[in-house]
Amino acid sequence: MKGLEVFEEVQRLVVVAAHPDDLESICGGTISMLTRRGVKVFSVNCTLGDIGTQDATTLRQSLAIARLTETDDAARILGIERTYNLGHHDGELLPDLELRAQIARLYRITQADTLLTFDAYWTGQIHPDHRAAGQAALDAYMPSKMPLYRPEQLNESEASLGCLERVFLFSTSREPDIYVDVTEVYDTKLAACIAHRSQFPKGEESLEWMKERDQDAGEVIEVTYAEKLKQMAVW
Amino acid sequence: MKGLEVFEEVQRLVVVAAHPDDLESICGGTISMLTRRGVKVFSVNCTLGDIGTQDATTLRQSLAIARLTETDDAARILGIERTYNLGHHDGELLPDLELRAQIARLYRITQADTLLTFDAYWTGQIHPDHRAAGQAALDAYMPSKMPLYRPEQLNESEASLGCLERVFLFSTSREPDIYVDVTEVYDTKLAACIAHRSQFPKGEESLEWMKERDQDAGEVIEVTYAEKLKQMAVW
Amino acid sequence: MKGLEVFEEVQRLVVVAAHPDDLESICGGTISMLTRRGVKVFSVNCTLGDIGTQDATTLRQSLAIARLTETDDAARILGIERTYNLGHHDGELLPDLELRAQIARLYRITQADTLLTFDAYWTGQIHPDHRAAGQAALDAYMPSKMPLYRPEQLNESEASLGCLERVFLFSTSREPDIYVDVTEVYDTKLAACIAHRSQFPKGEESLEWMKERDQDAGEVIEVTYAEKLKQMAVW
Amino acid sequence: MKGLEVFEEVQRLVVVAAHPDDLESICGGTISMLTRRGVKVFSVNCTLGDIGTQDATTLRQSLAIARLTETDDAARILGIERTYNLGHHDGELLPDLELRAQIARLYRITQADTLLTFDAYWTGQIHPDHRAAGQAALDAYMPSKMPLYRPEQLNESEASLGCLERVFLFSTSREPDIYVDVTEVYDTKLAACIAHRSQFPKGEESLEWMKERDQDAGEVIEVTYAEKLKQMAVW
Amino acid sequence: MKGLEVFEEVQRLVVVAAHPDDLESICGGTISMLTRRGVKVFSVNCTLGDIGTQDATTLRQSLAIARLTETDDAARILGIERTYNLGHHDGELLPDLELRAQIARLYRITQADTLLTFDAYWTGQIHPDHRAAGQAALDAYMPSKMPLYRPEQLNESEASLGCLERVFLFSTSREPDIYVDVTEVYDTKLAACIAHRSQFPKGEESLEWMKERDQDAGEVIEVTYAEKLKQMAVW
Amino acid sequence: MKGLEVFEEVQRLVVVAAHPDDLESICGGTISMLTRRGVKVFSVNCTLGDIGTQDATTLRQSLAIARLTETDDAARILGIERTYNLGHHDGELLPDLELRAQIARLYRITQADTLLTFDAYWTGQIHPDHRAAGQAALDAYMPSKMPLYRPEQLNESEASLGCLERVFLFSTSREPDIYVDVTEVYDTKLAACIAHRSQFPKGEESLEWMKERDQDAGEVIEVTYAEKLKQMAVW
Repeated sequence: MKGLEVFEEVQRLVVVAAHPDDLESICGGTISMLTRRGVKVFSVNCTLGDIGTQDATTLRQSLAIARLTETDDAARILGIERTYNLGHHDGELLPDLELRAQIARLYRITQADTLLTFDAYWTGQIHPDHRAAGQAALDAYMPSKMPLYRPEQLNESEASLGCLERVFLFSTSREPDIYVDVTEVYDTKLAACIAHRSQFPKGEESLEWMKERDQDAGEVIEVTYAEKLKQMAVW
Repeated sequence: MKGLEVFEEVQRLVVVAAHPDDLESICGGTISMLTRRGVKVFSVNCTLGDIGTQDATTLRQSLAIARLTETDDAARILGIERTYNLGHHDGELLPDLELRAQIARLYRITQADTLLTFDAYWTGQIHPDHRAAGQAALDAYMPSKMPLYRPEQLNESEASLGCLERVFLFSTSREPDIYVDVTEVYDTKLAACIAHRSQFPKGEESLEWMKERDQDAGEVIEVTYAEKLKQMAVW
Repeated sequence: MKGLEVFEEVQRLVVVAAHPDDLESICGGTISMLTRRGVKVFSVNCTLGDIGTQDATTLRQSLAIARLTETDDAARILGIERTYNLGHHDGELLPDLELRAQIARLYRITQADTLLTFDAYWTGQIHPDHRAAGQAALDAYMPSKMPLYRPEQLNESEASLGCLERVFLFSTSREPDIYVDVTEVYDTKLAACIAHRSQFPKGEESLEWMKERDQDAGEVIEVTYAEKLKQMAVW
Repeated sequence: MKGLEVFEEVQRLVVVAAHPDDLESICGGTISMLTRRGVKVFSVNCTLGDIGTQDATTLRQSLAIARLTETDDAARILGIERTYNLGHHDGELLPDLELRAQIARLYRITQADTLLTFDAYWTGQIHPDHRAAGQAALDAYMPSKMPLYRPEQLNESEASLGCLERVFLFSTSREPDIYVDVTEVYDTKLAACIAHRSQFPKGEESLEWMKERDQDAGEVIEVTYAEKLKQMAVW
Repeated sequence: MKGLEVFEEVQRLVVVAAHPDDLESICGGTISMLTRRGVKVFSVNCTLGDIGTQDATTLRQSLAIARLTETDDAARILGIERTYNLGHHDGELLPDLELRAQIARLYRITQADTLLTFDAYWTGQIHPDHRAAGQAALDAYMPSKMPLYRPEQLNESEASLGCLERVFLFSTSREPDIYVDVTEVYDTKLAACIAHRSQFPKGEESLEWMKERDQDAGEVIEVTYAEKLKQMAVW
Repeated sequence: MKGLEVFEEVQRLVVVAAHPDDLESICGGTISMLTRRGVKVFSVNCTLGDIGTQDATTLRQSLAIARLTETDDAARILGIERTYNLGHHDGELLPDLELRAQIARLYRITQADTLLTFDAYWTGQIHPDHRAAGQAALDAYMPSKMPLYRPEQLNESEASLGCLERVFLFSTSREPDIYVDVTEVYDTKLAACIAHRSQFPKGEESLEWMKERDQDAGEVIEVTYAEKLKQMAVW
């Protein structure tokens, strides 16, 4: 069983998620540990999370604004370098050529060496946005490294050719083989989640399900809290 | 090994299939047993089944009409509450946002608590329409429960917020763990299939393949005929 | 463990790949052995391979032209009957209805009885074009056999109804059960690959990775070089 | 003011309309006079006319079938060589690349020398399908004459390169300069319209608006009934 | 030359515009006069107006929110019954089937008898969103009156079949023949425009161009301020 | 009647055409006169011109390559600063959001103050690509000047906010009011056209139609050769 050491050579990490709060609740502990070790982390959310409420009177645009602010608050807590939102609508994300190009552009701008995203092939994935985000993130890997793919992206002043070398997946049904012990930063993880006030209005009380899940993972490696990942072989 | 008892709490069931006759030949026995127990069943076919013939002189629109009638005939035999056809063309179904919205709308109108559909991840699935129907049905699950997703659907007089709680899959490569003994209603299943005259012009003789398949499933639980299903965990 | 005998009844084989050089490097040995035995082989590449370079000053259209020529050179070496290129852009292939129809048309024109293509469900597939090609090839199987699907294709002078009976997959994560011993034709395979000068400018030296992979497969059946395939059940 | 003589050199005429009954009610008289003179006329309707009713209980597919039959009945009355229906849905026709290709294919199959269609630029056109049909018919003119445009169409046994030389428009706001005296065939025109029973259930009584319009045109050239057209210069 | 009397029989008017502030600055005076006479007016903006600034640091979602509020403020000043925003992005509006359906739905919900919108055929129109809004508004006219067009819209509790009878256009190059004297309500028009603070930060000073344009129109009919319209014949 | 003086304040001009050779044959004389006066001219062709032959055996990609070279040869003759080709396929250009964005990007990169393009509203335009190019060029005008429209374009090192101030149209049915006397540079215009060897294989002999057209325009202002344009008011 492997742990945080799989990230040893990582210097710049990009996380591609679907909604504000995915990163925080799924791998917020791992991210916090990495930023403390000096890794530069970039967060990409594909959608605005703008249907994320059960209150039918909410205005979608207002919810989007609120969640953009919450994302930045959480990013500060976790030590994230910069956050990007691709502006798609929640519940309607598609892994199309446009999304692929948007993500490839950020691989080129962030110069990340490592990708962390949803496993698009988890057969238990019920949320279509999660699948779409993971698929598009994977589909952008190859083209981002080819100079003739969307060459205008390479004219942007910050951009260079994509240089990803490693891919890690979360929310996977493939046997996870990486368990990161996040016990020491769990308060930070909780604080980052709680920053998403629109989603967890009762604070830690709204996050019992997450603590249970992370405790279950912790039991496997005999610690209090853990997060599970899987490395994907790439070429 | 589980059986019909997995449906114990089901009151309103929606079946999302691709073609007229999918429901009947795959799970017609289970449906018949459920309607006899008082479950309200709604049948959704995504396509018109309008290339379903080897006779090149058939007019596609005429075939569509004939199959709509056959579907209603079969539904009466099985005790189905109401049938819907989404009007897409056979052999060209795509799991796009439009299909997702059409299906979400019916989850909201039927107020089904349970979904039964194709497993979109069966790696042995050779028919693209089956995969598309299963994928769109799954992709509609989450959004249908969110009030800000396509809110105009909630203005329709019959509609309320989606309330699906359970998902069952057929045509799956995941180890099926539900075998429903359909021996006692097998004549009804056969009659429902035979109602699809355009597909099974020789009646029961055209359905030997189905009987063999259902007998094979029956052997597993030592009954004459059975149908196989798999429950998917949802949240 | 099965071998070349699985192709015993094959008379006309269509290979659907994504880029010029996929066929050659993945199954060039098997193809060479089949054409020597009199099988007619048709090669379909979905994309032009027009981002296949690390030289940013290359003109995409020039690269496309060069690779079309290389494909024909390699085809002569392998004894391939005819090559088709569907003209899509490299890195942006989508398994949409248009691609499906293009491929179905070629099933009808080549009158192939057997399909060989990428496994669209390999969860380790990092190249989106490979997945798209395999998916569209599979999705075209069913409709190509139905006379009412895109009936204008059947008006073309060479075309008849599709008649595929067998599907084999490469680049698969499902346990491969076919290992073809290609030792005796390995020089031919190498020559066909080297014909792709734009991809392997240093000839055999650029192909060490391929030789290693094929040696690893060879070890399983105790020969020098082998290629791995999987048969998919169809109906 | 010109009249029927503008069609003197026409041998094969293709009419591109939007709905069954457009051709009949707009230029049915002209068509009848041309077929009597030996011109081969081909009728293309882009949509099924499947929302053409105020009865909300009608099934769209049934209406489509009925109108296909009515079209053929009317065609027999007018002496039309062959009718084509492109199968699009009424009220949702778009002048996209697919429609353009469908129409170009028919220019190539019918080998028409002359096109008659809606003026896409009539600023008083309130029906979007009329505009779309006229636009696509015009947009298909050029490509149909180029051998590298959709070359697979030219493989069809009946097809050759498009050879349109003349374009005439109806429903135009440009000053019409052709008035065809259709008095002598007006009974035939009426009969062809009345064949569209689903649209004109009371026969001639349902067609008073058409007779008035054609009488107004007739007054311009001092005959009882006339139809107005405009020739468009092409190159 | 006609004036306000062309609206004599109007009871329910729907205005389809592209951006928040189009209605106010183009026909705010006419609208104010109509609401004072008891006409119910419904305002539909197709886009969020979310690129409507020269300040590159503005967040698009924040601008959208601000403009929704400004729209409602202006609506109160003009006496508008209700405002709708279709949520499309500024600068990227397309007159596609989706937009057509959205607008048709509002014709059915508002039960408007009269439409006021952009002339899609103004050859001097440089703003693509204006053209798209006018085109889609026109294209929705016919289908909204047909019960088989998007029939699920008619299930909404407020909706009935579309009943538009009149169409008026603004921003037209066709000779305008209606000049509405808006002198007596010009202060109200100005106030409604000024409510769009994000667009006219200096209040009336930012609106000199509008006053000049309305004075020019006023000169034609010898009043201080006028607005120009054109009626389109429909059937 | 106005002439070349309308370009007096122009410093950077962008021409948006559909095919290689459009610019040269329509306004090559005007362009030559402007570059001699020191105006920087940028040429944008939307399509590759890759169906521009009657020889069915030509490979589309080879034709595209040849025409790119011809374009550069002609540009050198006319003194054009730089040529761009947007890579779309001939006969299938659509004025969609993608084309709009591609063109807006070039307005931002070239920093052109003036646009010259096809009149998208010429009701006599039979070539759909001409209409599409003119429409997209016009549709890109507004958004290119807004910083929140496709803001990533502004990150490219050469780009700034669009600054177009004037629009001129060719191939128009609106009364042209600008006639440019191009007699003194007509040899240059001819040479630029002849550089398109694939289109005018017999040199000047293949261009008689152009000389006639330009002589007709010349007659209006009593010179040997002229080119006709129309200015469009913009805001």
